[in-house]
Amino acid sequence: MATAGKVIKCKAAVAWEAGKPLSIEEVEVAPPQAMEVRVKILYTALCHTDVYFWEAKGQTPVFPRILGHEAGGIVESVGEGVTELAPGDHVLPVFTGECKECDHCKSEESNMCDLLRINVDRGVMIGDGKSRFTIKGKPIFHFVGTSTFSEYTVIHVGCLAKINPEAPLDKVCILSCGFSTGFGATVNVAKPKKGQTVAIFGLGAVGLAAMEGARLSGASRIIGVDLNPAKFEQAKKFGCTDFVNPKDHSKPVHEVLIEMTNGGLDRAVECTGNINAMISCFECVHDGWGVAVLVGVPTKDDVFKTHPMNFLNEKTLKGTFFGNYKPRTDLPNVVVLYMKKELELEKFITHSVPFSEINTAFDLMLKGESLRCVMRMDE
Amino acid sequence: MATAGKVIKCKAAVAWEAGKPLSIEEVEVAPPQAMEVRVKILYTALCHTDVYFWEAKGQTPVFPRILGHEAGGIVESVGEGVTELAPGDHVLPVFTGECKECDHCKSEESNMCDLLRINVDRGVMIGDGKSRFTIKGKPIFHFVGTSTFSEYTVIHVGCLAKINPEAPLDKVCILSCGFSTGFGATVNVAKPKKGQTVAIFGLGAVGLAAMEGARLSGASRIIGVDLNPAKFEQAKKFGCTDFVNPKDHSKPVHEVLIEMTNGGLDRAVECTGNINAMISCFECVHDGWGVAVLVGVPTKDDVFKTHPMNFLNEKTLKGTFFGNYKPRTDLPNVVVLYMKKELELEKFITHSVPFSEINTAFDLMLKGESLRCVMRMDE
Repeated sequence: MATAGKVIKCKAAVAWEAGKPLSIEEVEVAPPQAMEVRVKILYTALCHTDVYFWEAKGQTPVFPRILGHEAGGIVESVGEGVTELAPGDHVLPVFTGECKECDHCKSEESNMCDLLRINVDRGVMIGDGKSRFTIKGKPIFHFVGTSTFSEYTVIHVGCLAKINPEAPLDKVCILSCGFSTGFGATVNVAKPKKGQTVAIFGLGAVGLAAMEGARLSGASRIIGVDLNPAKFEQAKKFGCTDFVNPKDHSKPVHEVLIEMTNGGLDRAVECTGNINAMISCFECVHDGWGVAVLVGVPTKDDVFKTHPMNFLNEKTLKGTFFGNYKPRTDLPNVVVLYMKKELELEKFITHSVPFSEINTAFDLMLKGESLRCVMRMDE
Repeated sequence: MATAGKVIKCKAAVAWEAGKPLSIEEVEVAPPQAMEVRVKILYTALCHTDVYFWEAKGQTPVFPRILGHEAGGIVESVGEGVTELAPGDHVLPVFTGECKECDHCKSEESNMCDLLRINVDRGVMIGDGKSRFTIKGKPIFHFVGTSTFSEYTVIHVGCLAKINPEAPLDKVCILSCGFSTGFGATVNVAKPKKGQTVAIFGLGAVGLAAMEGARLSGASRIIGVDLNPAKFEQAKKFGCTDFVNPKDHSKPVHEVLIEMTNGGLDRAVECTGNINAMISCFECVHDGWGVAVLVGVPTKDDVFKTHPMNFLNEKTLKGTFFGNYKPRTDLPNVVVLYMKKELELEKFITHSVPFSEINTAFDLMLKGESLRCVMRMDE
């Protein structure tokens, strides 16, 4: 490659400060160092987590920063020691990695890599503690090791899933984060059996992906729980059979759900991060066999409270991170599921805009109008 | 049988009131009614739960009552509709049943039978709401459907496990409750893999049975946690490799355990019922794959509290009831495990006394000197 080993100048959307519209700038992207890969991003989608760290409310502000973590791209060049990827490979960047050497990576049960686990405060590469992005020599911070709101970005090899090059990157780019998080929560963790009942708390993109998992698992009844009644119509496309708005009931929502299901749900998945929803999600499952799975991220002062007899009555409570997928090992197989037409990713991609209109994507998400807005980097 | 259909007069240990020594009385035992079985008890052991309901502190007092629920016996006669058992069959009574018809019995995952689930307040048979025990015509209450502190007792067929008649009843009688509860918590619920680390909270009979499960599963390290340092010596016979007394440390015990195990236990089982131990048991397991299992019964006002990120970090919390064993389906197989010499039940039977000395068994347990004291009914 003519560009290998050289600084690439390209366009990136820079967040200069919290909550201010992003600005498309020309940035310099340094060559990848040891165990790093420089990727040409073709498509990137906007996820709530980008918005969350852009708003930086209650977060450590790390600015100026290049956000973005759901994307699909092609390897431009690789740094020293990278053997699994080569220029031209199609990849999905992931905000959490898989070093393949730590106890977590060696465990069949964990995907919480010690080395490359998500770090939202770090704005630099882990190899040398420096950024690969500059504007006129001034460093611009990275975001969760991916920074996909840039035509080129540098990513640790452990945070890149090599996928089938025939997969359409404008679709499978959404597997990088939200879809896999929700879908995996259901199929890898809650594991409903055919014919079982499933409740999904929160009908945003992650909740609807969890619902897609329930639908594909053959759930007989899928109850969506959300405070916004407008969400039900959309959720029907994802298999939602019943809708419960906690605001419509005077009794606690877990009691409503238990009555609706003759003793409780077989499985329930929480995708809001609200602590009361988490508790309801656990308490609504059936004694003897119910499994509740927490996906939504709580605030740091939240306390999960319940009577311990709920556990003694054989309800199980689990949580998941990135749907229990190991990024490099498992994500290529999720892409294959899509290619076999088992996953309907198109339902999630409600909008698409040129990269230059990235602020429109933010507006759509802030207004709650989009599930996923995919940005086309070449426009 | 000469006695079938007739009232049998025999000896039973009657608890006339809370906390007062039991009194051996001649009782009349009525014939079994529909779906009931009259059993000649040969051996019965004393469990903490008997002591708990005999003390009746904070419990609904149900007196006069015949306690007892760990036992082995032989079917004397059967009532109408009983087809699975016949006179002469060897059986283990169980405090919780298996009707084989409810949703729980039909579920592979539950053992919490709707019809015959433990009921500690009911002192009568579920068929007709009456007792089968009388003394000079005055009813004496049953206990958890078993009342094995009697030479003969009447039990619902769903609460009797038919076992191999070659199994020694003086040993396998302890499978009725405590042993199976602890052992099953480990092997059926925590399911440690070979080489994993396991912590057991509480080193009474149930905890040591959980430890026996860890030993048989091939755990590489088994850490016993108890407030009584004298328990460690005994626990070594059950595979305990390390001992932690929370009183010896200024920091919370879960932090001590996490430091000892380089990040946390692979599995932990709580057998005390103390709410703080329950919370520590959960918090000491490793992120990514740790599984904590609650066995000990909490009080009704206890609240389990933890930060929800502990779940999001992929720790699992489960509880179990009777070790997740279905009494009729699974207990015969546990007996087989003993007969194959895989289980060392003898270690649990620290004492044996004639039935007439039942108050000695209570004393031994109250002083913490016995794990299991087996009473011989024919003496």
